[in-house]
Formats: sequence, structure tokens, C-alpha cells
Amino acid sequence: MATLQAIKYNDGSLEILDQLLLPESCTYISINNVQDAWSAIREMKVRGAPAIAIVGSLSLAVELRKLAAPETKKDLHSLVKEKLDYLVTSRPTAVNMQLAAEACVKLSNNLVDKASVDAAEAKDVIVKHLEAMLANDIADNLAIGEHGARDIAKKCGNKDKLRVLTHCNTGSLATAGYGTALGVIRSLHKANLVDQVYCTETRPYNQGSRLTAFELVYEKIPATLICDDMAAAAMKEFKIDAVIVGADRVAANGDTANKIGTYQLGVLAKSHNILFYVAAPFSSIDFQIPTGQSIPIEERPHSEMTHTGSIRTAAAGINCWNPGFDVTPAELITGGIVTEKGVFKSDQLVPV
Amino acid sequence: MATLQAIKYNDGSLEILDQLLLPESCTYISINNVQDAWSAIREMKVRGAPAIAIVGSLSLAVELRKLAAPETKKDLHSLVKEKLDYLVTSRPTAVNMQLAAEACVKLSNNLVDKASVDAAEAKDVIVKHLEAMLANDIADNLAIGEHGARDIAKKCGNKDKLRVLTHCNTGSLATAGYGTALGVIRSLHKANLVDQVYCTETRPYNQGSRLTAFELVYEKIPATLICDDMAAAAMKEFKIDAVIVGADRVAANGDTANKIGTYQLGVLAKSHNILFYVAAPFSSIDFQIPTGQSIPIEERPHSEMTHTGSIRTAAAGINCWNPGFDVTPAELITGGIVTEKGVFKSDQLVPV
Repeated sequence: MATLQAIKYNDGSLEILDQLLLPESCTYISINNVQDAWSAIREMKVRGAPAIAIVGSLSLAVELRKLAAPETKKDLHSLVKEKLDYLVTSRPTAVNMQLAAEACVKLSNNLVDKASVDAAEAKDVIVKHLEAMLANDIADNLAIGEHGARDIAKKCGNKDKLRVLTHCNTGSLATAGYGTALGVIRSLHKANLVDQVYCTETRPYNQGSRLTAFELVYEKIPATLICDDMAAAAMKEFKIDAVIVGADRVAANGDTANKIGTYQLGVLAKSHNILFYVAAPFSSIDFQIPTGQSIPIEERPHSEMTHTGSIRTAAAGINCWNPGFDVTPAELITGGIVTEKGVFKSDQLVPV
Repeated sequence: MATLQAIKYNDGSLEILDQLLLPESCTYISINNVQDAWSAIREMKVRGAPAIAIVGSLSLAVELRKLAAPETKKDLHSLVKEKLDYLVTSRPTAVNMQLAAEACVKLSNNLVDKASVDAAEAKDVIVKHLEAMLANDIADNLAIGEHGARDIAKKCGNKDKLRVLTHCNTGSLATAGYGTALGVIRSLHKANLVDQVYCTETRPYNQGSRLTAFELVYEKIPATLICDDMAAAAMKEFKIDAVIVGADRVAANGDTANKIGTYQLGVLAKSHNILFYVAAPFSSIDFQIPTGQSIPIEERPHSEMTHTGSIRTAAAGINCWNPGFDVTPAELITGGIVTEKGVFKSDQLVPV
């Protein structure tokens, strides 16, 4: 069965699955320009650090394809830079959009300097660069899945069947396809190594119960949903072998910012002697940031915690704290950081 | 301001606040007999181990008051025993209803043997015994609050202001009034010692966000709601001083069964060097049960996890694990077990 497609792109036409409507309805919406992408990212119709970067980049490709060739490469460059700067402001914690923006601005800058390329050609080069991100991301995810599955199987002493726990959504819905942490789980399942996947609800936005559970059911991977406060009880009761989570940004020392709740899973895994893995594209590692303390943490609206749809689930007048992410110290990442370039010990990251 | 009244009893008439309708609506429902009480407990219109025992016992008082005097004390005894045996089946984990039933059956048995008391008088004695539980519970809770607040203040080095975290609901809504863990917090607040209370949402039933948050707002205690996956991040970010939770049943060795999620708060508190307290009436300690391993853990319906009202929050077809409780090992209860008889080290419990 084909994995779920959250991003559909074809010849300048971009559609995304509106993840706010899952699991009730599978509805695709058109993204016709950068403004549409910014809003969709901000409202979390698309989420997951890699998917955000791809949808943002593709929305620029959509705009550029529709654009008459600019007068000069400098005009083109100003336009590209302005649009990308804007896209980076949609969600502050994930580094992928920022890195994608930097790479594209650098390319555009190089094209300005290249006398042999005219403005129309430069536009085409940039569009192709942006469009290539989709296929590249899927290829990277497949490699992450293979590296991760092999490492976990080995470190678990080549047991017949493994029990793994994951948090949030890091699957086809968070990436161009296949997934990072959930990609590792897909690869374990393909190798017939999964006894059971435990997936946390991931409050307040329920990415686990709505999205990860949806993908696991869709692909018939044996899975059980738990609430976030059941993680330690499940670790003890079911003798879980490994925890595998994604990353929004990894600092140079291995400290990892990911969905709120990841840090406590790291503490709980350590206290239960359970391997803890982070799976992410190598581009999620931000060597500019020395430690997790420097990673900005986005605070999100209180309504995410106080309401489910129109139903109020919290007492009126209560103050809330709703950080979108937390930082897991490198020493808790006992399994390693799984990337498309291989599995790294969390304290031995080097630019490759 | 008077604390919220979840149980209203007056001369054979019993009403309870329907907690399923909170925080949207404050609606009282009549409990006219033991069957009404059993259903209200089962459906969680009333919850919290002490409140369950009181509502169950008062529902029997309601029935007995309406009853014509039985022919013989043996008839009375059979009736009382049958009704109480039935009430104990409403929720299996909490010990309070069972202990209340045993005490009442013992009293009734003694009355059978007492030649000077006739059947009508015996009925009156039993009714008075059942009715006294309400006032006794409030007095016990006030004592728990005082003992706990004093111990926490002392062990925190008499700091000016404390930050405490609590889980589930253990307040006026879970008891006859005032509360156990939340009673301790009320006493800390009366002593002007509360900087901030962090209250967890407590999935899947949201007793924290619906009920505890409601009580905290109602009494103007400074408080912040967090999701269950934010506990470790909050402990680190806000330098929380103590975690205080209730208990459904405490084993002789101090292992404590309480709302699912308590165990992981114990692990997280220990790893952050935060005091961890259990507050409960002394009757919650079950000296018949040697360790937590022997405490039966109730599994609850999956719909609690997959739906909020009529809104589906989890993918269709996903399997769920929904234990109502977990067991926190005695060694994680670093502050102590707070009862109306004083604060006990968790590994030094003795029948008093």
C-alpha cells in the first residue's frame, strides 16, 4: 500500500492535506502562493519541520512559475529573499525552513554573480532547486528509516520483535512522505520486527492520536494509543525496547528541541533503561547553535489547551502554559541521532 | 469564600454535583437510592475515592430512612450487607468504599448480637453512622491540609513562597469538602505560601483541567494549567518545589495506587530533586495489601481516549490502552504520606 501523501505537487500546482480536519475528513487544499503557505503553516494545516520547509519552498516555486520573467536578476533576488524571509516567520522553532531559505538565497546570490545566466534562466534554476526538495526529502527519509531500523535492531540484541514508543507525528504527514521517527518504525515493520508501537496522544494538539494513529491504522502496523500520562506505566507494563522521536532542531552538542513532552519521555526512558533515539534529516542539526539553551521555544495559544473544537475542556478563567516544544539534553539520547548520513552518538555530531 | 460543595445531604435527602457537566454547567442531581449512587459512581458523575465512599454510604442512609422498620435485626443486616456489597462493585480500585462497607457491616453485626437494641433502633444507629461520614471526612481533610502544609513548608526550608504541582482532582469535588492533596494546597494558600499551583490536565478524563482548575479559579488560588506531557518541562522551567497527589489505595509498604500518570510524576520529581507527597485519609492505607503489585487496576472504556463529547479526537480503528490508575513505588514518595493522623515516611506505615 502506498504511504499517505500529505503534499501533492505537479507542474506548479500545490495541494496539501488539511491536517486540522484529520481524522474526520481527508481534504486537500490548494496553496497558490507564499501567503497561503504561511497561513497553512501558522494554522498547523501542515506541520512537522520537514513538511513546513517543503510546503514553504514549493509555494515559492508556484509563485515563481506564474511570474513573468523579472527584468533583472537583482529584482529576482530581492523578491526571492523577501518571500523566504516572510516564510521563516511562520513558525520560529523549526530550523528546516530557515535552512531551506538560506540555501535558496545563497543560490540566488550566486546566480546574480554568474554573467552567463540571464534573469529568466536564473528563475528556472531556482524553481528546479525548490521543486527538488520533495524528492530529496523522501530519499532522505528512506535512508533515515534504514539506518535507524538497523541500529535499533542491533542495539536490542537482534530480538525477534520489538516494542517501540513514539511521540507526536513524524510520518508521511510531517514530511514529504515516509517520515523520520515514524519512517524508522515503517522500516522496522517492513523487516517484520514490530511487535507493537505505542503512540502517545501528544497534547494539546493530539498529533499522535489524530495523525500518527491514522498513519499506523492506514498501514496496518500493530499499534496502541496511550495518553501522555501513561508513558511510564506503559514502559514498565509492556517492557518497551526503544523510544523514537523526531526533532525540530538539534543543537551542535546534541541537545534536541522537539514537540513538548519529548524531554520527559527522555527522562522516563533513561530511568527505565530504554534506548532513546532522535530521527531527523541532517539539516535539522544547527551547528550555529551551541546548546539547546539557545533554541527559541514557541508559545502557542491557550485555546489549544482549553477547547476541543467548540467544547470547553478546561475551567473558564484558568491560566495556561502552552510551550510548543521542549529541549531534551544530549545525554538522554542514549540510542543516538539517526540521520540520512547514518546514526550519530548525540555528543559526537560533526558537520559532514 | 465557602469551598465548593459537591455533596449536599440534609435529613435523608442527597444531591450531588454532576461532575460530568463541569466546567460548562453546575447542575445537582438527586440520589434517591443505592442504585442511583452505583450508577453515578460508575459513570463518574462523582469520583475521587473519599467522595465515592461518602455518596455510596449516604445513598444507603437515604434508603434506610425511607424504609419501614424491618421485622428483625437479621433482616436489616442482610439488607445492609447486600446493598453495600453491591456498592463496592461500582469502581474496583479505590479502597475507601470497601472499608466503609466493612465498617458498616461490622456495626450491623454487632447490633444483631446486642439484645438491648431492637430492629428500629438498630436502623437508626446505622443511619447515624452513615451520616456521620460527611462531617468526619471534612474534619479529616482539614487535618490533612494542616499536617501537609506544615511539613512541606518545613522541608522546603521555610521559603516565602512555594510552587507546587498537582495531578487529577483531590479537592472539594473528590471529597466531602476541602480535599486531600488540594486540601494541603488550600492550607498552604491560607498561610499565604503559594506562589503558583501547576495543575495537570489529567488525560483522558481531564479531571485536572475541568475540576481542579475550576476549584482553583473559584477560590482565587494562583494557578496554571499544563498538559500532562509538560510536567518535566514545567518542573525544570519553574523550579517547582513539591508535587502533591492523592491516593486511591496505599499498600502496607507505601506503594500508592492513584490516577494514571502519578507514577511518572514520581519518576520525574525524583529526577528533578523535587519533594513528592501523597495526601489521603488514613483509611486509604490498606494494611491487608503488602505491596502495590496486589492492587487491582481498573481498565476504562476506550471512548474516553478517542472522543471528547461527540468529537472524535483519535483515528478510527486505533487500539487503546486506558488504565485508570498506576502504582507509584514507595521509594519515589520522598516527601511522605500525609494523613489526618500526621505525615508518615512512605516506608514506615503502621496501623494507628
